[in-house]
Amino acid sequence: MFIKNTWYVAAWDKEVSTEGLFARTIIGVPVLMYRTQDGHITAMEDRCCHRGAPLSVGRREGDCVRCMYHGLKFNADGQCIDAPAQSRIPPQARVRKFPVVESHRWVWIWMGDPALADPALVPDTQWLDHPDWRSLDGYIHYDVNYLLICDNLLDFSHLPFVHPTTLGGSPDYAAVSPKVERLDNGVRITRWAFDTEVPPFAQTVRAWEGKVDRWNIYNFTVPATLLMDSGMAPAGSGAERGERKDAIEFRGCQAITPETEHSSHYFFAHPHNFALDQPDVTASVHQAVVTAFDEDRAIITAQQRSLALDPDFKMVPFGIDAALSQFRWVVARRIEAEAKAAMDAVQAPASIGPNVAVARP
Amino acid sequence: MFIKNTWYVAAWDKEVSTEGLFARTIIGVPVLMYRTQDGHITAMEDRCCHRGAPLSVGRREGDCVRCMYHGLKFNADGQCIDAPAQSRIPPQARVRKFPVVESHRWVWIWMGDPALADPALVPDTQWLDHPDWRSLDGYIHYDVNYLLICDNLLDFSHLPFVHPTTLGGSPDYAAVSPKVERLDNGVRITRWAFDTEVPPFAQTVRAWEGKVDRWNIYNFTVPATLLMDSGMAPAGSGAERGERKDAIEFRGCQAITPETEHSSHYFFAHPHNFALDQPDVTASVHQAVVTAFDEDRAIITAQQRSLALDPDFKMVPFGIDAALSQFRWVVARRIEAEAKAAMDAVQAPASIGPNVAVARP
Amino acid sequence: MFIKNTWYVAAWDKEVSTEGLFARTIIGVPVLMYRTQDGHITAMEDRCCHRGAPLSVGRREGDCVRCMYHGLKFNADGQCIDAPAQSRIPPQARVRKFPVVESHRWVWIWMGDPALADPALVPDTQWLDHPDWRSLDGYIHYDVNYLLICDNLLDFSHLPFVHPTTLGGSPDYAAVSPKVERLDNGVRITRWAFDTEVPPFAQTVRAWEGKVDRWNIYNFTVPATLLMDSGMAPAGSGAERGERKDAIEFRGCQAITPETEHSSHYFFAHPHNFALDQPDVTASVHQAVVTAFDEDRAIITAQQRSLALDPDFKMVPFGIDAALSQFRWVVARRIEAEAKAAMDAVQAPASIGPNVAVARP
Repeated sequence: MFIKNTWYVAAWDKEVSTEGLFARTIIGVPVLMYRTQDGHITAMEDRCCHRGAPLSVGRREGDCVRCMYHGLKFNADGQCIDAPAQSRIPPQARVRKFPVVESHRWVWIWMGDPALADPALVPDTQWLDHPDWRSLDGYIHYDVNYLLICDNLLDFSHLPFVHPTTLGGSPDYAAVSPKVERLDNGVRITRWAFDTEVPPFAQTVRAWEGKVDRWNIYNFTVPATLLMDSGMAPAGSGAERGERKDAIEFRGCQAITPETEHSSHYFFAHPHNFALDQPDVTASVHQAVVTAFDEDRAIITAQQRSLALDPDFKMVPFGIDAALSQFRWVVARRIEAEAKAAMDAVQAPASIGPNVAVARP
Repeated sequence: MFIKNTWYVAAWDKEVSTEGLFARTIIGVPVLMYRTQDGHITAMEDRCCHRGAPLSVGRREGDCVRCMYHGLKFNADGQCIDAPAQSRIPPQARVRKFPVVESHRWVWIWMGDPALADPALVPDTQWLDHPDWRSLDGYIHYDVNYLLICDNLLDFSHLPFVHPTTLGGSPDYAAVSPKVERLDNGVRITRWAFDTEVPPFAQTVRAWEGKVDRWNIYNFTVPATLLMDSGMAPAGSGAERGERKDAIEFRGCQAITPETEHSSHYFFAHPHNFALDQPDVTASVHQAVVTAFDEDRAIITAQQRSLALDPDFKMVPFGIDAALSQFRWVVARRIEAEAKAAMDAVQAPASIGPNVAVARP
Repeated sequence: MFIKNTWYVAAWDKEVSTEGLFARTIIGVPVLMYRTQDGHITAMEDRCCHRGAPLSVGRREGDCVRCMYHGLKFNADGQCIDAPAQSRIPPQARVRKFPVVESHRWVWIWMGDPALADPALVPDTQWLDHPDWRSLDGYIHYDVNYLLICDNLLDFSHLPFVHPTTLGGSPDYAAVSPKVERLDNGVRITRWAFDTEVPPFAQTVRAWEGKVDRWNIYNFTVPATLLMDSGMAPAGSGAERGERKDAIEFRGCQAITPETEHSSHYFFAHPHNFALDQPDVTASVHQAVVTAFDEDRAIITAQQRSLALDPDFKMVPFGIDAALSQFRWVVARRIEAEAKAAMDAVQAPASIGPNVAVARP
């Protein structure tokens, strides 16, 4: 069960080209993406409406794609426009087309009702291509349900334990209680650690004297998007009051997109606003994040195996679960609401029945 | 669900020897085959009636096989005739024996009611060992349900798309509408393409001037047997009227045998009646077919993965599906009929009930 | 379904150390084992009560273990005693602790009701560390349900067939009918083969003149423990009357512990009381057993694959199945009794209902 009426990150912009055919499965649906000659991205079901062969192993023909099983040709709207030995193409010969928005390096896709696909709802990831920020593109694949990854990102108390040599720091970081605020479509988390140790990854990008004040302030919103203001400054320099001239800052952008119930895509970048002309610093920050995310994947995959042994396992809640519990609650409500709307839509015609019956003598 | 009362190809004759034990799973049943000293092939369930160990990892003892778990010995009829520490062998200590017919290089097996196993129903594949024809033996294994392979063979419009560099040819080949005739146990397909390009594989076996007329005329019958008259001749030479002296001809023999619901065996050969003393031509024809069938397997396996993502996927029918739709209809009717017969057999004794009741006062 | 109130072998003593964390799944439950500083072994659920991460990828902290996901710390009793950002630890924050007994080289674990875990019920495997006996430690992993391995060990008529070049011997060994006695918690099997051939493995440890009398006398008890007095002596030397001075003797200790419904752990050793100062003889005996057990695993795994093809397969019983049938009967009764006890425990409070109702006017 996934939320359908929401924007999912489907790809990094560079993954989808004008020549090729790019395939990725999103919330269980195989999707084909490619750019038409005008540079726009089109996304359609990667499953020929005829016998189900993947169009992505087909052939580009201009702005169209031809299925290389029986030769059906589809235009960029997913409509079949040519079929061998068939003069009249049935109008239902089409594959689903999905609304797509390309925005600041990410390709967002709407898997639900196209009528509801409002581009204004696409989150702002301006730091991914802003001239004042630098980052490298990250992607990793997970063999777990996406909610376990959300859980991980909604509680940074795991940093000193899972990432002691990268993003972590001293255990006191975990002892800080973050502020958790409910948003309409997720949660906002504010975590300040004052007078704490410089985490290992930050030691490689700059020299520090003494301890730092450190913050992670982020919105985590449906379906699974994390946008974060984070950084650190010399302890006592007033970063919490907005004094950031001696600080280093990041604008982490992360998005998890379910592939299936048991696997996930993870898109991420960690833009920084310092050492703009030092690609090795950017590379170093990126590598620290990649290493750390591999650490996350190891523990989460182990967790998944452990949970799979007992479907009835009951978790004991702790205070640190506040944010993830709220987020899971928001997700469950959205899925419920979509299920109810789908049921209402189906039942609406049936309500005509009684009226007709009343009209009878 | 598979048809049971039909002949399935179980093996190439050479696979079953007088010394060894040959194992192959057919419609979900593990089968052991071997030749007795008189050269006849015996086929029995490859699962000891005692504890289920495979007899095929056992030991030949003359015309018998001994299970190498606890030493039970079975004769060529599947009857247990020796057991350690057991003076009296229970008569129910036997494994199922399956009717087998060896005919023109193929070993056919009947997995249903032995009383219905009429050897006269075995299809004629005389070209596999006829002195006027040459071919090599083909076998490939598929990890898909056998019906997806049947679909492929029942619509040759895929040739220019899946096999552009082997069996294919120009796209106009796909534009030809074949004649489809219903047979009692399948369909007959007649496809003529006049004045079309010489397909790549045929260019390697002979020099051609100009275009050709090309035909594929085949019966596709249950369970999944394709017997085909195909070939090509110089365009306008009258092949469609039987004038074949300038033609090259083939008698394709193909059979798909389900291994399980999710995997299949594919037996094939492509006998030709020209260049009889040129083994390199025979090898070239065979290799073209093998390469092409690997192309089929690639697209069909991709199709299978795509379909598996959505069990509710509804295919949009096209005119080119006429033959495969008819064949699937025939298969479904046969399975229904067998299920009904099985149910009738079970319920027959119960019908005594009411009569007895009526006799009571 | 497994018996819960019984002692399972969880490990060889040497597998569990004072420094490390040792993980093994037992009857479907992930278990963490380690030794506290006083050398005692503690065993607890290897799944953090918070979010289910395995504690075995955590960190030892003295006699405690810290989960390296969010930093919860558990003492050797499985009680959570520290959690970041949490001043009060909820009392239900604990993982299950399992009773453990270390006895004669094996670590036994009780997966059921701790109140019933009587150390006196642990089988005596004194030969594993007795100065008059020598053996090496054996372990293999199986991808089959444990009962198929029990079946194998409950009927030694398979020896000449599965192990012709190791433990086996001439086929007459299989023709001997063993005596099978019902025990309260299993069966006792006595098998004497008089004037039989020296099995291959015994020829490598000593020179023999002529044939031998050979015996295998063992208890096979729940959950799946085999303790055996076996050996051989020159034919006619009176071993069956206790005259064993010219004999070689073994005290086989074997235990199968289910890992999951589809996989098993197999612990074994084969102590001998001769050539005590010849490690090469001990190694030779051990290697013969390992080779033979690999032969068992091959046939049992093939049997498992064969059985998996047909869940409805009905086995034909033979006389040689007497012991395994009785043992399976004992296991089934134990599981039934535990299920009934569990149901009675649940229903007991409900029985108050009617009494209360009666008290009403």
